[in-house]
Amino acid sequence: MIKKFVFNNPFKTYATVLDIESCTDTLPYFEYSKRKFTYKMSDTTCVYGLGEAVRGINKRGWIYEGYCSDDPSHTEDKRSLYGAHNFLIIDDKQNDGNLFGVFFDYPARITFDIGYSNPSILEVSIEKDDIAVYIIEGNTKREIVRNFRKLIGMSYVAPKWAFGYMQSRWSYFTKDDVIRIADDYEESDIPLDAIFLDIDYMERFKDFTIHDERFPDFEQFVDYMKRRGIRLVPIIDAAVKVEDDYDVYEEGRKNGYFCKDKDGNDYVVGVWPGRAVFPDFLNKDAGKWFSDKYKILTDMGIEGFWNDMNEPAIFYSDKGLDKAFSQIEKYREISLDANTFFDCRDVFPRLSNSQDDYNSFYHNVDGKQIKHNDVHNLYGYFMTKTAQEGFMRNNPDKRTLLFSRASYIGAHRYGGIWTGDNHSWWSHILLCLKQMPSLNMCGFVYSGCDLGGFNGNCTRDLLLRYLSLGIFTPLMRNHSACGTKDQECFAYSDVKDFKNIIDFRYRLIPYIYSEYMKAVLNDDMYIRPLSFDYENDEMAKNIEDQVMVGQSIMIAPVYTQNADGRYVYIPENMTQVRLNADSTITQTKIEKGHHYVNVPLNEIVFFIKENHCIPLCDSAKNVDSIDYSTIKLIGDADTYELYTDDGITTQYSLDNIKTISK
Amino acid sequence: MIKKFVFNNPFKTYATVLDIESCTDTLPYFEYSKRKFTYKMSDTTCVYGLGEAVRGINKRGWIYEGYCSDDPSHTEDKRSLYGAHNFLIIDDKQNDGNLFGVFFDYPARITFDIGYSNPSILEVSIEKDDIAVYIIEGNTKREIVRNFRKLIGMSYVAPKWAFGYMQSRWSYFTKDDVIRIADDYEESDIPLDAIFLDIDYMERFKDFTIHDERFPDFEQFVDYMKRRGIRLVPIIDAAVKVEDDYDVYEEGRKNGYFCKDKDGNDYVVGVWPGRAVFPDFLNKDAGKWFSDKYKILTDMGIEGFWNDMNEPAIFYSDKGLDKAFSQIEKYREISLDANTFFDCRDVFPRLSNSQDDYNSFYHNVDGKQIKHNDVHNLYGYFMTKTAQEGFMRNNPDKRTLLFSRASYIGAHRYGGIWTGDNHSWWSHILLCLKQMPSLNMCGFVYSGCDLGGFNGNCTRDLLLRYLSLGIFTPLMRNHSACGTKDQECFAYSDVKDFKNIIDFRYRLIPYIYSEYMKAVLNDDMYIRPLSFDYENDEMAKNIEDQVMVGQSIMIAPVYTQNADGRYVYIPENMTQVRLNADSTITQTKIEKGHHYVNVPLNEIVFFIKENHCIPLCDSAKNVDSIDYSTIKLIGDADTYELYTDDGITTQYSLDNIKTISK
Repeated sequence: MIKKFVFNNPFKTYATVLDIESCTDTLPYFEYSKRKFTYKMSDTTCVYGLGEAVRGINKRGWIYEGYCSDDPSHTEDKRSLYGAHNFLIIDDKQNDGNLFGVFFDYPARITFDIGYSNPSILEVSIEKDDIAVYIIEGNTKREIVRNFRKLIGMSYVAPKWAFGYMQSRWSYFTKDDVIRIADDYEESDIPLDAIFLDIDYMERFKDFTIHDERFPDFEQFVDYMKRRGIRLVPIIDAAVKVEDDYDVYEEGRKNGYFCKDKDGNDYVVGVWPGRAVFPDFLNKDAGKWFSDKYKILTDMGIEGFWNDMNEPAIFYSDKGLDKAFSQIEKYREISLDANTFFDCRDVFPRLSNSQDDYNSFYHNVDGKQIKHNDVHNLYGYFMTKTAQEGFMRNNPDKRTLLFSRASYIGAHRYGGIWTGDNHSWWSHILLCLKQMPSLNMCGFVYSGCDLGGFNGNCTRDLLLRYLSLGIFTPLMRNHSACGTKDQECFAYSDVKDFKNIIDFRYRLIPYIYSEYMKAVLNDDMYIRPLSFDYENDEMAKNIEDQVMVGQSIMIAPVYTQNADGRYVYIPENMTQVRLNADSTITQTKIEKGHHYVNVPLNEIVFFIKENHCIPLCDSAKNVDSIDYSTIKLIGDADTYELYTDDGITTQYSLDNIKTISK
Repeated sequence: MIKKFVFNNPFKTYATVLDIESCTDTLPYFEYSKRKFTYKMSDTTCVYGLGEAVRGINKRGWIYEGYCSDDPSHTEDKRSLYGAHNFLIIDDKQNDGNLFGVFFDYPARITFDIGYSNPSILEVSIEKDDIAVYIIEGNTKREIVRNFRKLIGMSYVAPKWAFGYMQSRWSYFTKDDVIRIADDYEESDIPLDAIFLDIDYMERFKDFTIHDERFPDFEQFVDYMKRRGIRLVPIIDAAVKVEDDYDVYEEGRKNGYFCKDKDGNDYVVGVWPGRAVFPDFLNKDAGKWFSDKYKILTDMGIEGFWNDMNEPAIFYSDKGLDKAFSQIEKYREISLDANTFFDCRDVFPRLSNSQDDYNSFYHNVDGKQIKHNDVHNLYGYFMTKTAQEGFMRNNPDKRTLLFSRASYIGAHRYGGIWTGDNHSWWSHILLCLKQMPSLNMCGFVYSGCDLGGFNGNCTRDLLLRYLSLGIFTPLMRNHSACGTKDQECFAYSDVKDFKNIIDFRYRLIPYIYSEYMKAVLNDDMYIRPLSFDYENDEMAKNIEDQVMVGQSIMIAPVYTQNADGRYVYIPENMTQVRLNADSTITQTKIEKGHHYVNVPLNEIVFFIKENHCIPLCDSAKNVDSIDYSTIKLIGDADTYELYTDDGITTQYSLDNIKTISK
């Protein structure tokens, strides 16, 4: 089922949990030579996987890198985003050929040239030949995923309240800002489960501090908000500010817990707080020490966090900045032309996330000095891993919400991810849709994108369409950047349309939570490409803008401006469900084949598979208030396997499933 | 039919050619107050126009600016690209409401908020209240366009050879590079009509010079290439290098032909050649003087040019650079944090195309000092206008190929445009498709985008799909940026697939050239939105990814990676034409309605309207060699109105149309 092939001395990443003997056979499927794994594709080969990446569900036709990157412009030409998810499924079945999964457990830069240089060659390249490669067999793509997920261990389980609608912004600057957001949502009668605190809640961007003037009596405030039914979720950044008498810095420095340069001095970079240092999460003691700091906030009643800037993002390093200031001098006296101007212009922009910096600091792993670049993709992962291990140590029975920007396979056991700094672009609704199944393959089930788009200005129609996708993703958060237009639902006209859609999320919670839990507990995918459910359907493998959500639902979101609908491929006879603008539901039969489906901005249309149904309940002000006695089943089956638990402890189990009937 | 409303003292732009009395009535349709024109939209109002811009054919839902901008990233959030095309059609007919066109003849920054701030309000804002507004009536959208086009004058006519396939790159550095390109195309048996010379053919980026070492005996070389059937098309940049003894600079300086600062000194900026000055194209004498310089190249046999960097693009100004070097100093001694780092990083990038520079130089218009920013959108237009006037003066009977990057309505009488620095992105195939009908409305009929994409690396499949659209655009040029992968057809495997598609362009030339000439001579659109041909078809107004090409054809290009086809809306019964991989043609009937159409990478599918047909001839090595006696008609009509002329003189006329039969 799974074979492990070890080349030389791979770094121990803890990505996998099964103890598999390494195999002495030759690696199948691939030619291996000079740090390149080569696979010959046929014209019809499809390639799936790579988790968080640009382009299609079928990854063929581009070159990708596994190298966690803080890149705020997710355009088609990018090779890597924040995560490094080195798992592929290669499907050549149409050609009576191979079907297998492959996981390249390799923590440094790895390149996947999937028919980019040569349309028929898949070539995976690594920098040093220390790697563990796993070949995962299965009869179907979905079975391969399940086998792979057994290998890498059960996915993180988020608390149930984290399936509610959540509002964020960089930043709600003060307690009063946060209260105003809660008031406005309450006034609009739109459910809300959490408000996020971005970097400005801290004192001078110092982790584990609270800005006392902006957020006086924080503990009481957290409690006040919780009594209103809303959790506060603060951000934690990777870098720790260099500041005398700042306890986190002082403790870390004294104990040698920060990443160091070659000579053993703390490596100083610039990030939000200005000069800062990186906790060495790969150093067990340092990771434990940092993770215990979250207790400062959990003791004040905080139940969830998002870990950011952990690729790690570097604005500049002390070393780089010195060099930049000296480089810029040489341009002072020359006439800047085609050959020199761009060099001059880019001296400072080039400082950020530079390869030179990633090559210049080191981790202490069990006493051994490890160059950061060689284990780059583990940094965000280990920040998440150690943080969640801390939560479990300090509060073993309780789930804590945690999601991260940077990640590597393995991190999926400790937290979810959001897909980073997307844009208020229509094309990014589609990008999110495509990323979700790929992330599910890699174990990141609790995931979602910034609804409405992080960068840029969102329009009313765009937010409605973003939300119409977002009601189906486990993480449903509206988030936007500093300097952009207000993006909360009540910032737009006819707020009842937003209410209709977000209410529907709450009506779907019994389904979404059941299907999410079943997926996690069965090592299965919550969101899947159509081709994973309809293996022999030639059309399904072409579909890049529809996905399956849970066992019963297919969605086909609208992602073009001014469209009154879209084309939908129906792979078998289904029930079309329409949430009307007045919150009523219309069910109609829709036949296998191609359809143009009308979807006004204030309606939702989705599809239920034949012989399936879904539970729908009444909406509620937050997840905790949902009344399961209001559940009704819709669809053409008579029963549904409902998963319920307390949503807050770690007592989750498949035993919590019960069959309910119409 | 057309009413003109004059507010105060508008600057004379020469955008229009009809002499229309200004009307003393109140401006209809709009409320006007404080430099804002406001129109109330209904839920179903569609808004067309704006020429070169991002987003949809229906422009509703975003905020646009008319302000010529050198922006190399054509993402959805941009407000302006290189052109300023201030013409709109507002269609409220579905609501039994208004249908009219409006042209805002205003040469400075103008903002079109089309339901961006408020979904039901269209608001057009200007900076100073000197403006001419034209209201254009008509019974259909197409009639409004024809009336508008009469107002602004007949569109530029390109020489016929410029409808051939053309290859470009920044840059083919030497004569040998150019010959190699010609050889490789010849070897691949792919037709080619022109090779473009980007900035490096010049000596130190000096306009109207030839780099003697790279291109020795240039005149002979031009002749040699022409005998091979290939024209060379050099670039001309707006800015003139500041260099002692460079005759163009010296002459311009002595005569005061360059743009000046407030005090009358030449305004020095940095562009490709380093320090440079801007010819004052708005100054009649300067424009004439500069335009005569093209004669240096036409005398050597050159028959076409592309005018670039004429927004005008500014890398930096002397003034800005001094300021930047002093600004950067203040960041030396502080700890750069969230509040300061980005300011520091952007000191040099902010230098380019700065508002401060556009406010700091002046034109001399009939002896009056005019601030550049107040007439910004005319600069590229007047570069094109004066250049074409020069060609006509020096060679009155001959067409010269000319297209430009920056433009304003009026420029359409003097040259075409290409859509600037797009990307090797799939989404930019669709962007190009959407820009074409909008450009046609504004008179820019000879237009096209950089096929394959200018920025970034193009893959084989992407280039094939780009070309499959490009065979229908009048300007069909493959162009790519310095530092990108080779993008010539022969750089990819199975070059026969490229041959099949490009050959088909040549087989279509009798149709494309006929339809182009008929559109130009009738003030009509060559490429149209579906809703312009099917005015009462509710579905047609939703279609943003299909267009009409000439009188007979509808196209529906594939613009997604790994797709084996796409959905197509057929608005009436049509003939589906398929160019097979082996160059044969298959015609089938396709019924009004929704269809999924299979389109392999190496095939072309398009549609012929009912009771229409098109002429197809045999391919040829270039346009001049096409044998019209090989024409066959396909489609279900028996006759076609074929336009023919010598393709090179200005003796074009509707009299050149003759009816040919099956």
